[in-house]
Formats: sequence, structure tokens, C-alpha cells
Amino acid sequence: MTFEEFQEYIKNETPAENCPVSKTLELFAGKWTSRVIYELEKADRLRFGQLKKKLDGITNTMLSGTLKVLEERGIVQRKQYNEVPLRVEYSLTEAGKAMLHIYYEIAKWGDAYL
Amino acid sequence: MTFEEFQEYIKNETPAENCPVSKTLELFAGKWTSRVIYELEKADRLRFGQLKKKLDGITNTMLSGTLKVLEERGIVQRKQYNEVPLRVEYSLTEAGKAMLHIYYEIAKWGDAYL
Repeated sequence: MTFEEFQEYIKNETPAENCPVSKTLELFAGKWTSRVIYELEKADRLRFGQLKKKLDGITNTMLSGTLKVLEERGIVQRKQYNEVPLRVEYSLTEAGKAMLHIYYEIAKWGDAYL
Repeated sequence: MTFEEFQEYIKNETPAENCPVSKTLELFAGKWTSRVIYELEKADRLRFGQLKKKLDGITNTMLSGTLKVLEERGIVQRKQYNEVPLRVEYSLTEAGKAMLHIYYEIAKWGDAYL
């Protein structure tokens, strides 16, 4: 779908429930969601404690909840290494990494208009 | 800024407070914000009542609050025609229309991964 086709597409009476934009924006819902994705994009992979340190003000409960939801949505993957002590790392899936294109458009807009 | 430059940019330790992505995502905060922008993009310009009809479940207070915030942020413009009865129309500013590029990336992502 080109940008022009997209413009045409939204002019038609697309019901909001079927709209790919609404559905995707729902994935960003949650105070910390976009920040977690952003930090994982920057760092490639992070342990829980490392991620927490980067997110000023987040609690353990909020971070584990956000990670759980992102895992269920297929955006974040959790990898457990059977070492002692147990090592768990979080990283973006292919879908999560592809979100960088959305962030790029958002950044360009912010640069131009904020 | 190209996409490659953007990738480089975020790898550096950009503090989240100065990040154009965070700042722009804040503009989308609010349950109805993105839906209002989307409906105004589709219809070009709408009166309060027309807009309300398109947003199932929104109250007058929520809609006028959302419009007020979007006006303050320079995304929506309110035009008053001095007719009897008074006619007021809402439309997107240039900055608001440029948000369609963000929606386009969001839609492409949704098509690919949802």
C-alpha cells in the first residue's frame, strides 16, 4: 500500500473497529509501553534490572506487567539462560523491531512541528 | 534525517526528556485523540455534532476537551462563521495533516503484523 493508496483508503468509510491504525495504536496503550520498546531498540537486549534502571520511576510490578503484555502481543521476546544465577534477557521480536519505522515518522513529525 | 541516521541517533544516549518521539507520543495521549485526528483527516472539516456522531460513546465534555487540547497543541483549528445559527467547523492544521504519515506507518505495521 503506497501513501496515496492509504489516503484513498481512509477516505472510504472504514469502520474504526477494523482499522489497522486503531488496532496498532492499542498496542501502544499503557504509560510505559513505548518507552520499553524504545529502550530495547536502543540496547538490543536487556535484563530486567538493566531495563528498570533506564526507566525512571517505574516499579517492578509496572515493568513486569508491561513486559508480559508486550510478550503476549508478540513485540518482545523473553529468553531464559539456564545458568546460576538464572539469566533472563528481553529483546524485540521482528515485529517489535519493525516498529522503529513508526518511531521514525513520529520523530520526523516532532522535529518539524514541535 | 534519513532512517539510517535515525537508527544511529537513538543508539546514542538520548535522554528521554529531549526525545522527539516521546514528546510527539504525548500528543496522542488521551482516549479519543487519535480517533478525532483520524475522523478530521477523513472528512476534511466537521462540525461538533457531526464529529460526535462518528465517535461512538464520546460525551460532549470529552469531545470538547479533546478538541480544546488539540487546538492548543496546534493540531486542530476551529473556525467560527458568524451566521445565525452560529456555525463552527473543526479541521486539521498543516501539522495535523502531516500526522497522516505517522498513521500510514502504523497502518503498514498493523497490516504486516496483526
